[in-house]
Amino acid sequence: MPKLLILSDKTETYRCLIEKENLPELSWAAAPAKDVDVVFGEPSKIRSVLAALPALHWVQSMWAGVEPLLDPALRRDYILTNARGVFGGLMSEYVIGYLLAHERRIFQRAEAQHNRHWDHSLTGSLRGKTIGLLGVGSIGAEVARAAKFFNMTVRGYTRASKSSPFVDEYFHGPRLLEFASGLDYLVSILPNIVDTRKIISRDLLAALPAHSLLINAGRGQAVDESALAEALNQNKIAGAVLDVFEQEPLPKDHPFWTTRNLLLTFHTSAPSLPEDLARVFIENYTLYVEGSPLKYQVDFERGY
Amino acid sequence: MPKLLILSDKTETYRCLIEKENLPELSWAAAPAKDVDVVFGEPSKIRSVLAALPALHWVQSMWAGVEPLLDPALRRDYILTNARGVFGGLMSEYVIGYLLAHERRIFQRAEAQHNRHWDHSLTGSLRGKTIGLLGVGSIGAEVARAAKFFNMTVRGYTRASKSSPFVDEYFHGPRLLEFASGLDYLVSILPNIVDTRKIISRDLLAALPAHSLLINAGRGQAVDESALAEALNQNKIAGAVLDVFEQEPLPKDHPFWTTRNLLLTFHTSAPSLPEDLARVFIENYTLYVEGSPLKYQVDFERGY
Repeated sequence: MPKLLILSDKTETYRCLIEKENLPELSWAAAPAKDVDVVFGEPSKIRSVLAALPALHWVQSMWAGVEPLLDPALRRDYILTNARGVFGGLMSEYVIGYLLAHERRIFQRAEAQHNRHWDHSLTGSLRGKTIGLLGVGSIGAEVARAAKFFNMTVRGYTRASKSSPFVDEYFHGPRLLEFASGLDYLVSILPNIVDTRKIISRDLLAALPAHSLLINAGRGQAVDESALAEALNQNKIAGAVLDVFEQEPLPKDHPFWTTRNLLLTFHTSAPSLPEDLARVFIENYTLYVEGSPLKYQVDFERGY
Repeated sequence: MPKLLILSDKTETYRCLIEKENLPELSWAAAPAKDVDVVFGEPSKIRSVLAALPALHWVQSMWAGVEPLLDPALRRDYILTNARGVFGGLMSEYVIGYLLAHERRIFQRAEAQHNRHWDHSLTGSLRGKTIGLLGVGSIGAEVARAAKFFNMTVRGYTRASKSSPFVDEYFHGPRLLEFASGLDYLVSILPNIVDTRKIISRDLLAALPAHSLLINAGRGQAVDESALAEALNQNKIAGAVLDVFEQEPLPKDHPFWTTRNLLLTFHTSAPSLPEDLARVFIENYTLYVEGSPLKYQVDFERGY
């Protein structure tokens, strides 16, 4: 019978949510043990106990990104599933919220209020704008759907997939700069894998129009941080909103704290909510005890 | 043949947009004249020339709200049509933008950035929240549709109509406080008519939960301004976003400039864009020369 180890800062919350379901055959481990075959947890915590779980068969990640488990030095003799289908709605709210803050000039209007100035200047709109999504997985597809709701034109840059019907035009491989050309907004939701490191390079930033806004809500490794700071300082693009960074928390002396036209959101774009993640685990656990293929399996080579 | 007078700060822009269409029979008046039968303009400008237009037959307002023309002392012997179907999308962006700014704590995160503080506190979401729309005409229906897109529960308070399928529950007449009870967000899109003056009263504000947010993007007269300042200063509600005011521009010494948890947006929520409004005029002009009933007719008694 499956023996489950939960590895999270909210282990008790998860245990409570899962126990409510009276899942068949399930037994619990309070700590890493020889007979644990199932782990549900945060990849950073799982990494350090992998070696102590000889019977490990399945890991359900609480995150979408599983970089800590992709190190080629680590074992890969288990099924790794990640969290999908739970972050898309929150990520859409994040992206649409900051795009509207930009178009609506909400910081400038607050500044006008502070100065008792009746700032009646015209507001911008999302309608008719072109958004480019770097990465169109399950999260990107939800962002594309929201962009369509607000009547934007949607471009997607992916390795090969064309799965979302809300993307108007797909770009792959060498067409990256063509994808970037003429965008009003560039939004990265890329995982951290070899192919995506520093994909938001000096060249890519140079291909963006001067009025464009960058949002990075995927992984910080996708951005060449010094090239971005330079582009912002020189007004090569209009602004950026960054949720993720090469190093988190952002070091106290990092230039991003004070780079002009840059907003930081401290990895809060799509928080992991226990109710949502417990649902993902329970769904996959049901398949596990049936012996059916699990959902959301990660390809260790591909990285997502 | 119809003789058109345009009354706007952007008369040349409108003339250019309309001339492009080569409308049948149309002739132009440069100033008020005895033979002008059609006026397309801003109600505040039209009001002062009404007496100088003996042949007036139809007025197309460039605004949704037509208060300046509703004064019972003014003539009503013409067809008045207002601007509809053009503000809904912009208003939805305004409402969703400020709701997300609130839930995402975007001002607090910017303050954290200023203090080099990694503010990883949990973000809120629109999903599952309850929004109450005061007024569900063509604009309110668009806001309701956007609220549904973000998975909110939508309540509508109207005189009698129940026209939007995106409203989950309608309230009328004496059920105003019941409508307000338990709302996360109260959004007013009401016109300025006798029945709506100071409808956002001390009692209504007292019926709202302490965590609720008020947005007024209709007309300022709907709000009891001193009751609202008091509610905000005493934390009876969490915040307010006001686009409209009893007097505009807001007087320099008005307490709202510095009332806590209050954002001012200076009547920019849904700007009148000439391309959109010219389209409304052209559509109705085509009906006018056919002798067909015009769209968007205002009932002078009802006021909208």
